Amino acid sequence: MQKNVKPCYYADYLQLDKLLDAQHPESTKYGAEAHDETLFIIVHQAYELWFKQVLHEIHAILPVLSQDPVNEDQLSTVNLRIERIHRIQEVLVDQIDILETMTPLDFLDFRDYLIPASGFQSIQFKEIEILLGLKSEFRINFDKKSFYNRLNEKDRNYLLNLEEQPSLFDAVEHWLERMPFLEFGDFKFWQMYKDAVEDMLKHDEQVIKDADYLTDAEKTFQLNDLSNTRSNFDALFDKDKYQELKQQGRFRLSQEATLSALFINLYREQPMLNSPFRLLQGLIDIDEKFTTWRYRHTTMVHRMLGTKIGTGGSSGHDYLKQTTQNNRFFRDLFNLTTFLIPRSSLPELPPEVIKAVNFHL
Amino acid sequence: MQKNVKPCYYADYLQLDKLLDAQHPESTKYGAEAHDETLFIIVHQAYELWFKQVLHEIHAILPVLSQDPVNEDQLSTVNLRIERIHRIQEVLVDQIDILETMTPLDFLDFRDYLIPASGFQSIQFKEIEILLGLKSEFRINFDKKSFYNRLNEKDRNYLLNLEEQPSLFDAVEHWLERMPFLEFGDFKFWQMYKDAVEDMLKHDEQVIKDADYLTDAEKTFQLNDLSNTRSNFDALFDKDKYQELKQQGRFRLSQEATLSALFINLYREQPMLNSPFRLLQGLIDIDEKFTTWRYRHTTMVHRMLGTKIGTGGSSGHDYLKQTTQNNRFFRDLFNLTTFLIPRSSLPELPPEVIKAVNFHL
Amino acid sequence: MQKNVKPCYYADYLQLDKLLDAQHPESTKYGAEAHDETLFIIVHQAYELWFKQVLHEIHAILPVLSQDPVNEDQLSTVNLRIERIHRIQEVLVDQIDILETMTPLDFLDFRDYLIPASGFQSIQFKEIEILLGLKSEFRINFDKKSFYNRLNEKDRNYLLNLEEQPSLFDAVEHWLERMPFLEFGDFKFWQMYKDAVEDMLKHDEQVIKDADYLTDAEKTFQLNDLSNTRSNFDALFDKDKYQELKQQGRFRLSQEATLSALFINLYREQPMLNSPFRLLQGLIDIDEKFTTWRYRHTTMVHRMLGTKIGTGGSSGHDYLKQTTQNNRFFRDLFNLTTFLIPRSSLPELPPEVIKAVNFHL
Amino acid sequence: MQKNVKPCYYADYLQLDKLLDAQHPESTKYGAEAHDETLFIIVHQAYELWFKQVLHEIHAILPVLSQDPVNEDQLSTVNLRIERIHRIQEVLVDQIDILETMTPLDFLDFRDYLIPASGFQSIQFKEIEILLGLKSEFRINFDKKSFYNRLNEKDRNYLLNLEEQPSLFDAVEHWLERMPFLEFGDFKFWQMYKDAVEDMLKHDEQVIKDADYLTDAEKTFQLNDLSNTRSNFDALFDKDKYQELKQQGRFRLSQEATLSALFINLYREQPMLNSPFRLLQGLIDIDEKFTTWRYRHTTMVHRMLGTKIGTGGSSGHDYLKQTTQNNRFFRDLFNLTTFLIPRSSLPELPPEVIKAVNFHL
Repeated sequence: MQKNVKPCYYADYLQLDKLLDAQHPESTKYGAEAHDETLFIIVHQAYELWFKQVLHEIHAILPVLSQDPVNEDQLSTVNLRIERIHRIQEVLVDQIDILETMTPLDFLDFRDYLIPASGFQSIQFKEIEILLGLKSEFRINFDKKSFYNRLNEKDRNYLLNLEEQPSLFDAVEHWLERMPFLEFGDFKFWQMYKDAVEDMLKHDEQVIKDADYLTDAEKTFQLNDLSNTRSNFDALFDKDKYQELKQQGRFRLSQEATLSALFINLYREQPMLNSPFRLLQGLIDIDEKFTTWRYRHTTMVHRMLGTKIGTGGSSGHDYLKQTTQNNRFFRDLFNLTTFLIPRSSLPELPPEVIKAVNFHL
Repeated sequence: MQKNVKPCYYADYLQLDKLLDAQHPESTKYGAEAHDETLFIIVHQAYELWFKQVLHEIHAILPVLSQDPVNEDQLSTVNLRIERIHRIQEVLVDQIDILETMTPLDFLDFRDYLIPASGFQSIQFKEIEILLGLKSEFRINFDKKSFYNRLNEKDRNYLLNLEEQPSLFDAVEHWLERMPFLEFGDFKFWQMYKDAVEDMLKHDEQVIKDADYLTDAEKTFQLNDLSNTRSNFDALFDKDKYQELKQQGRFRLSQEATLSALFINLYREQPMLNSPFRLLQGLIDIDEKFTTWRYRHTTMVHRMLGTKIGTGGSSGHDYLKQTTQNNRFFRDLFNLTTFLIPRSSLPELPPEVIKAVNFHL
Repeated sequence: MQKNVKPCYYADYLQLDKLLDAQHPESTKYGAEAHDETLFIIVHQAYELWFKQVLHEIHAILPVLSQDPVNEDQLSTVNLRIERIHRIQEVLVDQIDILETMTPLDFLDFRDYLIPASGFQSIQFKEIEILLGLKSEFRINFDKKSFYNRLNEKDRNYLLNLEEQPSLFDAVEHWLERMPFLEFGDFKFWQMYKDAVEDMLKHDEQVIKDADYLTDAEKTFQLNDLSNTRSNFDALFDKDKYQELKQQGRFRLSQEATLSALFINLYREQPMLNSPFRLLQGLIDIDEKFTTWRYRHTTMVHRMLGTKIGTGGSSGHDYLKQTTQNNRFFRDLFNLTTFLIPRSSLPELPPEVIKAVNFHL
Repeated sequence: MQKNVKPCYYADYLQLDKLLDAQHPESTKYGAEAHDETLFIIVHQAYELWFKQVLHEIHAILPVLSQDPVNEDQLSTVNLRIERIHRIQEVLVDQIDILETMTPLDFLDFRDYLIPASGFQSIQFKEIEILLGLKSEFRINFDKKSFYNRLNEKDRNYLLNLEEQPSLFDAVEHWLERMPFLEFGDFKFWQMYKDAVEDMLKHDEQVIKDADYLTDAEKTFQLNDLSNTRSNFDALFDKDKYQELKQQGRFRLSQEATLSALFINLYREQPMLNSPFRLLQGLIDIDEKFTTWRYRHTTMVHRMLGTKIGTGGSSGHDYLKQTTQNNRFFRDLFNLTTFLIPRSSLPELPPEVIKAVNFHL
């Protein structure tokens, strides 16, 4: 550590001269300051500060997971950063409660002065979406158009460029693909697993057929769903079927990545799989909290605008409702649950496989 | 206060002998207790306790709002009870985080033993929905069927009977209808309001036309939306148009109730309108928190089941997604925002009207 | 509303060029950037933004309560602002969870570069304390010294000057004093109240004496406490006794203000007392949340520094523990509970008193 | 998994007949039901349900950490259970907000009927305290007396007996003691560490002396504190000094346990130390959340009773204030921070030591 450290002063350290001189309501320029406009500004500035922090964490995580091979010693630090992002997200959701202390009538006092500014123009927000894994082609229609209309050329190119970089989704997929859980020499794990799956599905089928509390219509419905589950399982082990379902949008991860993620979930208690398991859980947490934030945002906008169009020109809460459903990052990890089998049916790993799993890592 | 009060003992007062002897995992009966099943039981029991509390509050609110006329002195107590319900709902949302500490693999250890039990069979939950204002005809299809299949005759009849009773929605509508905000003698409030609305819509139309940052497609879209808003406003003042939109499902409250609620929102600073305004805000808070809970529940089930069918036979998170969107109680109050006009355009109430407003109450 | 509103752009509106260029870790200047220093900076900047918002609300509340007489029509807006401050405080508490994602070992990577900056130098924070009602003479010793040593002359004078202005405590006291609840003509309210109090204390005394589950030592202890309560009650009605207890620090509000606050609490269901009651509850909420934040801050510092001295030179968490206990704003309002009597013993207000209460307001 | 699983019904599964028939307000027996007494009952019943769940988790953790040697494969599951306890605690804190929707005047409607019942008589709560590590001799005076006076003989003996069992504190201490971080063969780790500490303390001393922004009084204060820190460090390595400080209450963990915990903190990124590190963090989280709950409980009681005595005979919030400060479980782990040194000063572990650390586990 350095000698000759200059004394540090709070207000200079935090650059409060800049930070606290950045709140200038539009309403003041047009005659009378609307009391609640300061709240509106500060809520959004707080969001942008936290977005910067989230990006700081994502930019520290990406290099680690993009290595070839990944240094598994660094996974614990990656996990702490993912958990930090999740904790920040909790505050981002709570901040909506603060904004809701503004009533629609009070918003009307200055709303018109903000047009056409809106959250669409938050570059950091789009950066986060892109770096987590959202690509233009997945965005709903309004989003795609706004991408081009609402941003200046510099920002637009910056984001389009960013889409060309590997996202967290890509890095995670790549990390999973390089795991050695596809072949175990003589130990035919995946065959044993398939057999256990088939037993479980047969059992499930029987439970449905024997269930006298179900109507015929319901039995049909549930048997169809089981048939669906069966083809998902089949696809898991068949390259061509997997590709087909991937093209339909049922899967986004590659087949090898999905199988590795499944293995990690099934054998998470192996010491060397503890951190990989936490990583997958952490990504699920982030995705879940992100969509919860979108939903909360939707209901808040419904409250604030009724059925009117938002300042950015979208149909307010309808737009947000769609993005809530569609703009997910790690849906595959949620869906992985479909492929779990009960612990009691899980093949026990022989010592040499345990050794191989642990030594690779 | 009584003399001769018998000493009270904590464990007897809370009937802990009953309460703490109600946790009996199914998995124990079938061979080996699944550690996480106790959590599953206790989470749901905590929900049922809070449901009982919410019903206790609703049952205290209903009689007050069902009076004819309502004793406005009691509104402050009604508001405290609505705020209590909202505070309880916050904990009900947080409890989902506790359940999510159970992983899907752990749920698989005992999930099969629970079939076909599920939240569909929670009578108190359905009671809350019905008493807030949800009627069978509004429920999505699966809900309707489950209503009949999953409940025994006694419970089914109990709930169907309950649907015949006035709900909170009915009581609020009735209370709003009896307010004197439709006529003000010589003061033509609603005509002045209509004029202010027309000015606002003309101004909005001009803003759209003048906006060079909008594409033609966007201008068309926004002008259409404005036209939609215009017909909603027209319907506000025209009995037949209102009925038409009501039949389409655009409104649920009666026209008089909607106009009263609008008036309360516009003139909420009148001392005697403080409590009525808080009441409407409180109902919005409850509705918003309920739908947030439904959404959180959806993502949790997605996480827990993937794309599989839930123990109650529904398509797990798809079902919940639909109820999140459809089973709202006070949507009209959210949509009321569409009809607000800026304070600066609001007609000033002459003294005799202020007096009338306050003296009625 | 203005015509010719210039288009508004998100990044300009929020001055993101300033806001997002204010994060410059010290560790970078001394060789190697500590990853967690950005978090440290951003957490504190988010705090400062919210402090600004809280001050914005306090500055809007003060003028209303400082009027002579207060315009009771404005109380509902004051209450919404107090509730907004409370909602912001909830996020301020949650932000501590974000900072705790930094471990002490990571803090050690840059902690030395921050010396002697610390929260003591947050002018906005001290402003909030002063405007809520904290005066220098109440501050614990270390605080007093730091007031002079850690701030430059300009800031020090600004705050000392601010202490001369009426605080929210002063304004609330003044507002309470001007209420007409001391005399009610022929209706001897306070005599009736005193009698009801005496009955209640006699009853409480008997309950203690009859309690066979209490040891003699406990009976003595409880009877002493009752005796204490009795002198507090006596002081309530006796100018000289009240002054004495006030000098001892038992009361801070004036006697008239305390009696008014008590009356508001007892008769809060009177429509015109609804808003005054909410106001007192809101101040209690703010005080409670502030002290909860101080406590959370204490445990976080204990976690982060162990028993070491903080960057600002204080004994870290010991200092914070003291301020948690001592730096309260509205302790009187909490203590008011001591003087409540059961509703069943409350004198019923005759019509002319109800009228007087309501018409004054 | 079993065949022939009997259909499971929600209301039977959760034993709702028992659970929802356990709410019987005392006020009803004495004439008129107090509306808020149901809330009071249900809040406490919800607490007792969650206490049962916390005990269920603690009872699953204890056997794992009490093994000799501990099976490190099971640590990840222990950590998930600790995190579950922490998540439950968050809801326990939030439940206080629900109880605070009851005003003191409403509590007065039924408070007298509850005497002398109080939280002192919650056996589960005391069980949790004891199993986490609280022993009678650490309890403050009032607690000790109430232990004997307020409980019946059966419960008293049950708890006294429980104190004889190993608590989580004991199990953790034992687990830490058995770690091999005291000797590393030729690698004189602790000597290197001592040298690094001495350098750091010398540096800190110089920083204080050179600090011209400090007054002489402050310099003296800080140098004294440094001297204190120095003797703590000395004690770390000297059996007799450690024992002395242990007797003074400065340490509770044994010296070997403290050294192991310190090592885990310093080298937490070693893959095999990830889970041990999380375990220590988890215990800190639980302790911190417990004391936060106590503090929240204190302010709530202050609000509810003012300065009066609680139903259980203690001086209400004063009692709670003392337990908040004193009844901590893992204070040593917080204080461990005092002994950390910057990463840059940390001795690098040679390969054979890394191997030894990992292979032991």
